[in-house]
Amino acid sequence: MKSLKIGILGLGTVGGGTYTILTENKDLITKRTGCNVEVVRILDRFKKPGVPEELYTEDPDDVLANSEIDLVVETLGGIEPATSFMLQAMEHGKHVVTANKAAVAASYQKLHEAAEKNGVKFLYEASVGGGIPVLTSIQNELQGNRFLEVMGIVNGTTNYILTKMTEEGADYADVLKDAQAKGFAEADPTADVEGIDVANKLSILIALAFDKYIAPTDIPTTGISAITSEDIAAAAAEGCKLKLIAHASLKGDGSVEASVAPEKISVSHPLAGVSNEFNAVYITGDMVGELMFYGKGAGALPTGSAIVGDIISVAKSL
Amino acid sequence: MKSLKIGILGLGTVGGGTYTILTENKDLITKRTGCNVEVVRILDRFKKPGVPEELYTEDPDDVLANSEIDLVVETLGGIEPATSFMLQAMEHGKHVVTANKAAVAASYQKLHEAAEKNGVKFLYEASVGGGIPVLTSIQNELQGNRFLEVMGIVNGTTNYILTKMTEEGADYADVLKDAQAKGFAEADPTADVEGIDVANKLSILIALAFDKYIAPTDIPTTGISAITSEDIAAAAAEGCKLKLIAHASLKGDGSVEASVAPEKISVSHPLAGVSNEFNAVYITGDMVGELMFYGKGAGALPTGSAIVGDIISVAKSL
Repeated sequence: MKSLKIGILGLGTVGGGTYTILTENKDLITKRTGCNVEVVRILDRFKKPGVPEELYTEDPDDVLANSEIDLVVETLGGIEPATSFMLQAMEHGKHVVTANKAAVAASYQKLHEAAEKNGVKFLYEASVGGGIPVLTSIQNELQGNRFLEVMGIVNGTTNYILTKMTEEGADYADVLKDAQAKGFAEADPTADVEGIDVANKLSILIALAFDKYIAPTDIPTTGISAITSEDIAAAAAEGCKLKLIAHASLKGDGSVEASVAPEKISVSHPLAGVSNEFNAVYITGDMVGELMFYGKGAGALPTGSAIVGDIISVAKSL
Repeated sequence: MKSLKIGILGLGTVGGGTYTILTENKDLITKRTGCNVEVVRILDRFKKPGVPEELYTEDPDDVLANSEIDLVVETLGGIEPATSFMLQAMEHGKHVVTANKAAVAASYQKLHEAAEKNGVKFLYEASVGGGIPVLTSIQNELQGNRFLEVMGIVNGTTNYILTKMTEEGADYADVLKDAQAKGFAEADPTADVEGIDVANKLSILIALAFDKYIAPTDIPTTGISAITSEDIAAAAAEGCKLKLIAHASLKGDGSVEASVAPEKISVSHPLAGVSNEFNAVYITGDMVGELMFYGKGAGALPTGSAIVGDIISVAKSL
């Protein structure tokens, strides 16, 4: 039988979810790919119960330069050392799968060039919309279309906050505190509530749908921290809900207009029904018309599902 | 440059949409695939304006046995002669792409075996949900999941009728007449309104998601022709909408329970927001959780988009 040996960089939430899926659904994955997909090394200082201790290492080179490993899963998060590690893994001839939107958006071209130069695959379905297979669909089944518009609710924390403000008439500060207590928002929520995370994801969506790279820092970005319960009520009075929207459209001159900002969405629009921590990407193609992809945009298993999907696509291509 | 030469069987609505996309987006497709994708032969008696006359033939063998042709698009519809033509094309070493749910559902195993035996691809994304890339997602990016449940609104005619009955309190017979006048329902609407079309699509969804073949005729099927405005009102009183649902779930013993029937869907469920001619498939995976794919389930260009997506995946694999 064919074999695909995996090294995981960082066994936190998403890395842990990936490990769980590869272990619990191993029989299914073997049957579907005809390939023995196996985790052989994990870079992490903290050991998780149920994971064999001998897999762990604290030396990155035990993964990156390990001749036994075919594919590296990067789930450290953050731009560095994640980006350098991905580049090193590719230079050692390893395929790379990541969920790291900040790193992919910041070094989109460099990472793709390295993959091409080294003849390896570089896949990152998990970086936008967690378990929702939107990036792969844009790159494959929808390729007969010229994409006209992409609108996404791609951050669960802010969508949860706006949903609670809308449903309960609560204030931003109170809902944020509650979200932090429930683990839906981080202690420092800046990257989420100021739209930085959304801008990273929009940069990736634009690169794939419009074949143009716009750095996330070049996308005009407004978060939700200044939204008041009066803003929510004013939108409701117009038959709308306020949603933090990653928005990109193709202009007549071929340029792409992009923004991250709270937008009033009519309650009759499919995106208005996307509540709490759910994500959705609404795409318009010149031929297919309007499509929406909806699902869980975060969490260990949904995001792990996308990473395992990428791993399986490499396994099938062997 | 690589080249992929196409023969189209039947230039009706869907075949015509496919031809339009391959022609209008030719530059885009060439750029994305690195392959010159070209229609070289069309089987049809009726000539469409704007399509070069010399492409037409009335002899099936000019397509099926044509050594110049690499891929056959089957858009005749109906079980025969479509199925025989697809099998013959494969025996002549041609890849086959189809939108024909009746033929795929009736001869699922036979068609797959022929593709495997002849070393060709057999793709049918367009057969369920028109332009919505749900079948490809099930077969690729979501393969790390054990699928637990599939629920689909996969027939635009019946969803249009139920939507109008719900929104306007109108009677079934009146709405059907109106739908026929607008071209949303056929003169003989039996296959749509009695759920036969939906059962074909559910058979295909089950085969892909649960790796089990259940013939469409073995799926308990109830259509919408007996639905009254009182049924709609009773559902509304319970906070629900009536929708014709293709429903399959994995049971504890590994068997799959399947049905096509009108179901009460809570207005808070994402499927309740799928109105008029739109389609959606709602999938639960053991790892990814709930996902919904939403879009246009019929029409020349949306369905053509799915066929062209399949053609592009063959072009990329060359």
